[in-house]
Amino acid sequence: MKTVPKNNVVYAFKTDMEAVETILPPELVKFEANDALNGQIDSEDKLLQEIDFSRINPATGPIFVEGAERGDILKVKILDIHLPDWGVTVTAPDEGILGEMVKEARTRISKIEGGSINLKGFRIPARPNVGVIGVAPLEGEYPTGTPWKHGGNMDTTDITEGSTVYLPVGQNGAMLALGDCHAVMGDGEVCVSGCEISSEVITKVDVIKDANIEWPLVETERSTMTITSGESPAKAIKEATKQAVEMLAAGLTLDWDDAYILASLVVDLKISQMVDPTKTVRAVIPKEVLPTKEILKSVK
Amino acid sequence: MKTVPKNNVVYAFKTDMEAVETILPPELVKFEANDALNGQIDSEDKLLQEIDFSRINPATGPIFVEGAERGDILKVKILDIHLPDWGVTVTAPDEGILGEMVKEARTRISKIEGGSINLKGFRIPARPNVGVIGVAPLEGEYPTGTPWKHGGNMDTTDITEGSTVYLPVGQNGAMLALGDCHAVMGDGEVCVSGCEISSEVITKVDVIKDANIEWPLVETERSTMTITSGESPAKAIKEATKQAVEMLAAGLTLDWDDAYILASLVVDLKISQMVDPTKTVRAVIPKEVLPTKEILKSVK
Repeated sequence: MKTVPKNNVVYAFKTDMEAVETILPPELVKFEANDALNGQIDSEDKLLQEIDFSRINPATGPIFVEGAERGDILKVKILDIHLPDWGVTVTAPDEGILGEMVKEARTRISKIEGGSINLKGFRIPARPNVGVIGVAPLEGEYPTGTPWKHGGNMDTTDITEGSTVYLPVGQNGAMLALGDCHAVMGDGEVCVSGCEISSEVITKVDVIKDANIEWPLVETERSTMTITSGESPAKAIKEATKQAVEMLAAGLTLDWDDAYILASLVVDLKISQMVDPTKTVRAVIPKEVLPTKEILKSVK
Repeated sequence: MKTVPKNNVVYAFKTDMEAVETILPPELVKFEANDALNGQIDSEDKLLQEIDFSRINPATGPIFVEGAERGDILKVKILDIHLPDWGVTVTAPDEGILGEMVKEARTRISKIEGGSINLKGFRIPARPNVGVIGVAPLEGEYPTGTPWKHGGNMDTTDITEGSTVYLPVGQNGAMLALGDCHAVMGDGEVCVSGCEISSEVITKVDVIKDANIEWPLVETERSTMTITSGESPAKAIKEATKQAVEMLAAGLTLDWDDAYILASLVVDLKISQMVDPTKTVRAVIPKEVLPTKEILKSVK
């Protein structure tokens, strides 16, 4: 299995990215993922405002995926997210949903053992996820902290072990990179961080040829979720709804209005994160209503 | 068990409401709940724009609860939500999250049998909820279609059989009323309606003396959720976060900043509805972190 070392990182997803590794799909790849703070905070004495913000949200990679071309889908199954023995959660004035209520910066280190996070004596079961995962976009340049159509900092709890992420290939080779793992975070990531960890993420990377999606999907055991971002929660919510309705219409051969009505009964809108430069939500389509493979067939 | 007949309805929650029944808590009460469209649409030929909008979202009641005074909490356990044999889902131009994409009004009638909704051949498991449940507010007047601190049209899927709703008593007697049940709806209620049903809702109503909450709570098997509304999704999300952080701080004797950090790891922000005059979300506090009874103790 090829390993992408943690010192190979990018801070932006852009059209012209330089690959650090090449793979021939389907292939297993291990990414050594740095924490979102890039190791700059390892004690409770270190505070968010003291670090170098030009070095946050590093994404390990990118890797060139042979045969992946613009207009394909990159399929990334998350096989394993390694839990280290500690993680860090930070907040600071003007950070997170209630930033203006924060009086001073605070750092909390949690020990992680036996599958639990210990935050000041509170034991929280680990539910690791990958915060940043993305590819070179069709156009433009996005800091790794900003989620958009190419993926990026989606901070979606369902991007977890056993899930499969589908990303729209914007450039030849896809240029996959990932980082910013969390041992646990709540939907919303309200204080601006989860339990931030460095990790090793084992993935299986494959390509689906000639299949167009506009936004990333994540497939879990029971559903497919379209993950959308927007300048405001309202914009992200609207886009997620639009995507879900279109998928139901295409996948079930319904007219748009009936798909809209069906969505109102079966699609759950869920919050991913409300603290990054763009906000992220996901619309959940149950497999019982429309299997993932039918969605993928309908976008061919 | 006292029954509140379906012809006793209100269209607004306001400070001066006239009770149609009086109960001595704890007492079981059955509410005959009208559907949100008030029976005006019973075939697919009838469309949303043809109905009398002054008669939508009727709430059955209100009932005067002996001993409930301003500054108490009304505790309403939802014991049963009767499923009728049909329901209706409607949309129309300018309705729902994608209102501007709807070209013409549409009505879909679903048969309900064997615990499933049949929408055009799609069988969807029923998960009934109560859309409108509220009390006389502390001040002001709210149409039953508008959710706010007194409850109202919260359209929250977790207000279901087995859940307990806690409402801030704004006026003596509380003046509880409810309606707008759904056989099923997705989080978001994206097309503006769920599977709208008339129903009978059996509740157990009690009073918790001298306990102040600002917004409604709903207790489920595994969590307590604070339900907040706002002019925009962002405002509702912010208020839900604020409430959850304050509850964690008070209930666990944490300072505000540590409660904010803990919330970022354990609290899930969830979307209730995005289609009413005010938008509703809920912040989910797991009982493992803080039991409901501790939350209620901390607001005394």
